[in-house]
Amino acid sequence: MALLADVGEFPFIEAIKKLVQAEAPRRGVRVGIGDDAAALSTTATTLATTDAVVEGVHFLRDWLTPAQLGRRAFRVAVSDIAAMGGKPRYVLAALALPAGYRLADARALVASLIRDAAGVGAALVGGNVSRADKISITITVLGQPSRGALLRRSGARRGDAVYLTGCTGMAAAGVELLKRGVSRGVLVSAYRSPPLHLDLAARLAGSGVVSAAIDVSDGLLQDLQHICRASGVDVQLDESALALAPALARAGLEREPLSYALSGGEDYELLFSVRGGERANSRVESLCSDAGCRLSRIGEVVAASSTPGVRGVSQAAIAEPGYEHFGHKT
Amino acid sequence: MALLADVGEFPFIEAIKKLVQAEAPRRGVRVGIGDDAAALSTTATTLATTDAVVEGVHFLRDWLTPAQLGRRAFRVAVSDIAAMGGKPRYVLAALALPAGYRLADARALVASLIRDAAGVGAALVGGNVSRADKISITITVLGQPSRGALLRRSGARRGDAVYLTGCTGMAAAGVELLKRGVSRGVLVSAYRSPPLHLDLAARLAGSGVVSAAIDVSDGLLQDLQHICRASGVDVQLDESALALAPALARAGLEREPLSYALSGGEDYELLFSVRGGERANSRVESLCSDAGCRLSRIGEVVAASSTPGVRGVSQAAIAEPGYEHFGHKT
Repeated sequence: MALLADVGEFPFIEAIKKLVQAEAPRRGVRVGIGDDAAALSTTATTLATTDAVVEGVHFLRDWLTPAQLGRRAFRVAVSDIAAMGGKPRYVLAALALPAGYRLADARALVASLIRDAAGVGAALVGGNVSRADKISITITVLGQPSRGALLRRSGARRGDAVYLTGCTGMAAAGVELLKRGVSRGVLVSAYRSPPLHLDLAARLAGSGVVSAAIDVSDGLLQDLQHICRASGVDVQLDESALALAPALARAGLEREPLSYALSGGEDYELLFSVRGGERANSRVESLCSDAGCRLSRIGEVVAASSTPGVRGVSQAAIAEPGYEHFGHKT
Repeated sequence: MALLADVGEFPFIEAIKKLVQAEAPRRGVRVGIGDDAAALSTTATTLATTDAVVEGVHFLRDWLTPAQLGRRAFRVAVSDIAAMGGKPRYVLAALALPAGYRLADARALVASLIRDAAGVGAALVGGNVSRADKISITITVLGQPSRGALLRRSGARRGDAVYLTGCTGMAAAGVELLKRGVSRGVLVSAYRSPPLHLDLAARLAGSGVVSAAIDVSDGLLQDLQHICRASGVDVQLDESALALAPALARAGLEREPLSYALSGGEDYELLFSVRGGERANSRVESLCSDAGCRLSRIGEVVAASSTPGVRGVSQAAIAEPGYEHFGHKT
């Protein structure tokens, strides 16, 4: 079982090159891995986002196999492209790995990342390999707008309906279970394998009726607050409309299901507002239904506001207002 | 003295937004920091590269002020755009910082990065902030080709002359001195403040006579070897032509000056081959002279090869064949 420290950086990079040759799409890649920088065919507008998963902060090593980790790192990053209604094309991966990490694990991690990206049409085109005490994977995704306008956070206006895909709170509950040593079940799976909403998001962008969008990474309330602030509006939340995963009630968790759904974080569901009345609402509802995706109408934009915020939140949720990386709860 | 753990992630991101508004170029930035992804104006070809500096691997905390660290992180990454003959336009920064890091230091780090990037026409457009035990800064730079072709590693052919800017080995010697507690002098400065060769590299790309190029990050021999392999050639190195910084001989270092120059690493000088005989050589020599940049003609491509490599290397250097992140020397 060779360790990275045994074989060094360059054989690992050679292995990555071969995996890319075997599995990654080639369209648009003028210069890929192996030169100083990648040279990529791009359109007039390029979308770009960077996200990191850090051992000890976002995961512990025994929570995820290397393949699960590679896939999760990609999905967490590409979710931001989905939230803009874009199409991912290119991926750069900066891998910081302990010297004692097994080469086979490093390959499995990268192979999974390459395959998951290829599944949505994106190619690994570059990156960086560095030693570190703890694993961290920083993924940059470059994309382009799909048909239709970009989905911004700032476009929500009074009267718009607010929608949410999927069930939030499951990933956060999964983390709580993993901390207790539970390693199976739908909640743990929700954490391990975030959803990919790229096709749906592109269709939503193409519909012309989505006025604002964000992906739920910090927790539903926190991310809804981001839309409120960017748009300068208040949103009236209808807590009773939230889809609560039955597993949240069955798992013997520390808090009420609603609390996880409102402030869990790491969900990577889509949260968006729709303008155009019931006809527009029906349009997005059928787009989601066609995509086999659960959709809940969870609120309404009620007013422009100079102190934008979410109304109608019960006390239980206010105690846990979302994920903050430096441990501070505002 | 507020710590990141006191103020949280979002106030730090707000501070970064303000710094960007004050100092970063705006051209081409359709959506900058504050939405899910940046939306950037791009040309038909986009160059992309990612590089990381990791505490305990690339630096110790007392080796660099936060401002020096921010600048160095940018320069290490943008060097790959220079090596392609490109022009940097956009920067994404993934910052992993300890909760006990001071907000003022985090701001100084980012301000310096923004300013250094702005100095070469590039704007910070996005990134990520995460907690971690140790500092790591992962920088993605997006650029575009300047006038002229891209400089690849693979174009060197028999008869081409091989050139090197500046004096290699100083940064590695600087690291050795920093480890001993020396914190001043030209060698330490060479490590702290890598050169920016973007304008020169763009002119070299525009000259049409540069057949291959790379930036020296792993050590001169290692990077020359990368050109040999990518081009399928042997290079005859003329060690006596290497410019040795006088400080290397005066600093009481562990090894001979030549050894640092050949295998030090972290230099970020440009190494390139030139095709077209003495007329072409004169052309690049005057380009460098006009840029105020030292240039040495250090060898020649002597043959196509199925076992590509560097010839004419003395024993002293072979003992230390360049930087490898997992501690393995090939």
